[in-house]
Amino acid sequence: MALAYDGAIQNLIDAFSRLPGIGPKGAQRIAFYLLGAPDAEAQGLADAISEVKSKVRFCEICGNVCETSPCPVCQDPRRDRGVICVVEEPKDVMSIERTREFRGLYHVLGGAINPMANVGPADLRIPQLLERLGDGSVTEVILALDPNIEGEATTRYLAQLLGPLGVKVTRLASGLPVGSDLEYADEITLGRALSGRQAA
Amino acid sequence: MALAYDGAIQNLIDAFSRLPGIGPKGAQRIAFYLLGAPDAEAQGLADAISEVKSKVRFCEICGNVCETSPCPVCQDPRRDRGVICVVEEPKDVMSIERTREFRGLYHVLGGAINPMANVGPADLRIPQLLERLGDGSVTEVILALDPNIEGEATTRYLAQLLGPLGVKVTRLASGLPVGSDLEYADEITLGRALSGRQAA
Ligand SMILES: [Zn+2]
Ligand SMILES: [Zn+2]
Repeated sequence: MALAYDGAIQNLIDAFSRLPGIGPKGAQRIAFYLLGAPDAEAQGLADAISEVKSKVRFCEICGNVCETSPCPVCQDPRRDRGVICVVEEPKDVMSIERTREFRGLYHVLGGAINPMANVGPADLRIPQLLERLGDGSVTEVILALDPNIEGEATTRYLAQLLGPLGVKVTRLASGLPVGSDLEYADEITLGRALSGRQAA
Repeated sequence: MALAYDGAIQNLIDAFSRLPGIGPKGAQRIAFYLLGAPDAEAQGLADAISEVKSKVRFCEICGNVCETSPCPVCQDPRRDRGVICVVEEPKDVMSIERTREFRGLYHVLGGAINPMANVGPADLRIPQLLERLGDGSVTEVILALDPNIEGEATTRYLAQLLGPLGVKVTRLASGLPVGSDLEYADEITLGRALSGRQAA
């Protein structure tokens, strides 16, 4: 018996099914939504995907994703250059920006120490962080890693590494649910954790 | 203060946020997933969206979506041309095909009667259904509309309209949770509802 759907629709459902957080039924729903949507809306999504892959690069200073390097945050003269907030991933920068509690700079490590996944300190952007601390203009480093095992291990490692350099090292206040992802914290919780940060 | 993200990434997050079932956090998660995915995977998704819009059309007979008109089901000589299953949307065809309980043809109405949304019988593919019944070759019409208020109204309307034509008119057996979407029924429930169909 012939299938009800031929190539293009099933291809689209399959492509959406591979995205995080989208199951087969959700992918089907999205595919039929796009089939019925105006051409401009569907093409806009396709173009947005292509553009992000062609335009987005990594900031040479902080490691965040951006279209210009250095990124807008690193280039902004109104940001406080004396404070660096260290995060695991670019998406964490966005989470902290949304709290509007932080006016300093960022440093994206590109992950956290995780022996099970063979990620050690050498696989993270730690040398680049040390380089940024070299001229003494940075007075505080805020460690804003995910409150889980890997984030804790990375926080302890960085606190030991940075301690002897004479820079103030702080970490986000606890209050974030343990075992969770920083990415999913609501703005208020994350903002309070940031303003109540403590010596690491 | 400069935003953490400039155009391309925010555009992509916004585009995904507009899709059904995807919230702002889910859209952000997908955008960063695509940023880190191989170029071929991201471009594959973009191409699948473009292709579905350029290739997919509506079958001139049943109204289902397809790449060739008539669609593969309408063209398949092994399908039983004496039975037509009437559904609201193309996605419902896929749901019924998955049960593997049905070997007849389909007719997609393009919606259901809904006075609140100004959708009346004239807005649905009802004349085309009557035309298909004109030569007497169809002996049964199965009404497989969503088990909600609009689907019930459409079922009653069609049962009255088709009754005088001498064709057997049936409807899906109850057993589907009332108020739900046919799209989300599991295969077994939907298959049983189909095999236990009753006179409308
Ligand atoms: Zn930067
Ligand atoms: Zn057809």
